[in-house]
Amino acid sequence: MEHLRQLIHGGDLVTCKEQHPSLDFIDFSANINPLGLPDGVRAALMQCADCCTRYPDQLCRELRAALAQFEGVPTDWILCGNGAADIIYRIAHALRPRQALLLAPTFAEYEQAMLQVGCALRLHTLSPDNNFAVKEDYLDKIPGCDVVFLCNPNNPTGKLMGPELLQRISDACKKANAILVVDECFLEFLPDSERYSLKRDLGSFGGLIVLRAFTKIFAMPGLRLGYALCSNKKLLGKIDRAGAPWSVSVPAQLCGIAAAKERRYLAESRALVEQERVYLQQGLAALGFQVFESAVNYILFYTSNANLAAELCAKGIVLRDCSNYRGLSPGYFRTAVRTRGENSALLNAIKEL
Amino acid sequence: MEHLRQLIHGGDLVTCKEQHPSLDFIDFSANINPLGLPDGVRAALMQCADCCTRYPDQLCRELRAALAQFEGVPTDWILCGNGAADIIYRIAHALRPRQALLLAPTFAEYEQAMLQVGCALRLHTLSPDNNFAVKEDYLDKIPGCDVVFLCNPNNPTGKLMGPELLQRISDACKKANAILVVDECFLEFLPDSERYSLKRDLGSFGGLIVLRAFTKIFAMPGLRLGYALCSNKKLLGKIDRAGAPWSVSVPAQLCGIAAAKERRYLAESRALVEQERVYLQQGLAALGFQVFESAVNYILFYTSNANLAAELCAKGIVLRDCSNYRGLSPGYFRTAVRTRGENSALLNAIKEL
Repeated sequence: MEHLRQLIHGGDLVTCKEQHPSLDFIDFSANINPLGLPDGVRAALMQCADCCTRYPDQLCRELRAALAQFEGVPTDWILCGNGAADIIYRIAHALRPRQALLLAPTFAEYEQAMLQVGCALRLHTLSPDNNFAVKEDYLDKIPGCDVVFLCNPNNPTGKLMGPELLQRISDACKKANAILVVDECFLEFLPDSERYSLKRDLGSFGGLIVLRAFTKIFAMPGLRLGYALCSNKKLLGKIDRAGAPWSVSVPAQLCGIAAAKERRYLAESRALVEQERVYLQQGLAALGFQVFESAVNYILFYTSNANLAAELCAKGIVLRDCSNYRGLSPGYFRTAVRTRGENSALLNAIKEL
Repeated sequence: MEHLRQLIHGGDLVTCKEQHPSLDFIDFSANINPLGLPDGVRAALMQCADCCTRYPDQLCRELRAALAQFEGVPTDWILCGNGAADIIYRIAHALRPRQALLLAPTFAEYEQAMLQVGCALRLHTLSPDNNFAVKEDYLDKIPGCDVVFLCNPNNPTGKLMGPELLQRISDACKKANAILVVDECFLEFLPDSERYSLKRDLGSFGGLIVLRAFTKIFAMPGLRLGYALCSNKKLLGKIDRAGAPWSVSVPAQLCGIAAAKERRYLAESRALVEQERVYLQQGLAALGFQVFESAVNYILFYTSNANLAAELCAKGIVLRDCSNYRGLSPGYFRTAVRTRGENSALLNAIKEL
């Protein structure tokens, strides 16, 4: 099946299972909320069968109304997609930009989507010496770019960008007439996410697109639900039309509506992730690994054992080998933050090696 | 919300409900199997919650294995998508053809996808005088086209193309070096579908893409599952990479695997649709409408009352107004073939007008 899309995302529970069919795996390779599906989402899923005999509402009207309330933005600033990845590819096809500014390392799909439309890449390489933080020299790279992709907090590093620099980047993109796409898919894991969100600039900067997803925070990656926020309706319409209609399934729409009501689940998730991230960071550091700063539900670390993921796979643990990220090298791994029992299992499995 | 995609598909149950919130509607506007979800699909959907906390398998390995058996083709000839519409847009983005040959009338998304990539359209207009049949003069239009879209049976006409002409079209496309996309999404409703399928040419013609979907035949449009069959793996890989990864959700994959086992449901569906199509055709003709030949689960007809759909909407019945199809005019409507009780309700509602 090599002719189909390469599995650039590593981890890949399915491949691990194929290699070790008798094992039960704990998946640390996907950055999913360890609490699992919220009860309301599970209930919505169990009740959706009769609605699946109809086409999804192409305009996602009820879902967008629910998201408008959840996000505190007007309904007509919202475009829903088949996961945030769907929106990223629609942006690529709609804009067909000539020059894009990307971080290295960062989520691989920005680059994949840009390459699909023949866009040249301008890379801003981040350094492990300062925890892969974006610094002021980034601003110099913006002029001349048609589109700028940021991921905040960044993936796979977990590094959060502060509000002041973010604001300067947003202003610089506006001045340079560049579309700024800020992927905030993990921001909801922060207790004070509003402080770090560029949502506040949407009204004043029509070239700003904020990406959000329910995939990670509501543990529903299998259902595929992401969305874009943008105040420029003409731009949003163009992005919409760049891909197929009916892209958001009935289960995704109904579960999204249910998820938007799950306020208590959100609070519990943030508290758990904060506590367990510290536990796991300390545990990994105690094992002698170089552990990088993270604000969210995953941790990047470095070890001289470049074979760690394969060795853990044989013990029923799936880790994300990050050696194929631009700007990283063999020895970099990312782990999701999960529940205490699972995190302990990870630390113990590493000790046993 | 006008900035988002226009509702080009008419019917639109949601819009009718907004206009008449107190009514219960029977939806004849969507060409869905009237038997509803097969039991096995419903069971798979009820059991999928725990799997939704994982990303879908990007390569759809289990699903493609099930489809290979269902279709009798090798697994590596199959590419799955978020409905057949997803594949149509991926084809557009992957090929970026300059000239496409389309029927008029036909399913609107081929044109929408081609226009997205700036492709010129060569239209072959079909005539009501011979039931909108494709004739031999179609062959002359093929040379010079990069891509040729056929829909068999055609939508919205329901007209089936015979094996001999199909073969000549396939040969002409091969000779003209044109990619031939044959949308067979409704073919499964025929008892002798194999006789009319171009699947037999896949092995000898690498530029042939056969589109299939579980949307209509298994009554699961809300779940989004379509697929392409093509023996040219390089071409299939290019189409795959033209859109986002993880496009086929976990519910779609699990329900697709379950659906592929539903042989008895298929037989019952074909028998019901055949019987009810004849009933509805005769009933519509008795009402004085001009009824066109159909081989499948929907019927195109013409009436001098161009306002019929709006009038039926007020009576709780949603019909597809086909006046916005290229090659058709006000007065053309399409109805799905449903169960006897529903079909009688449609005929009675028209009589009451």
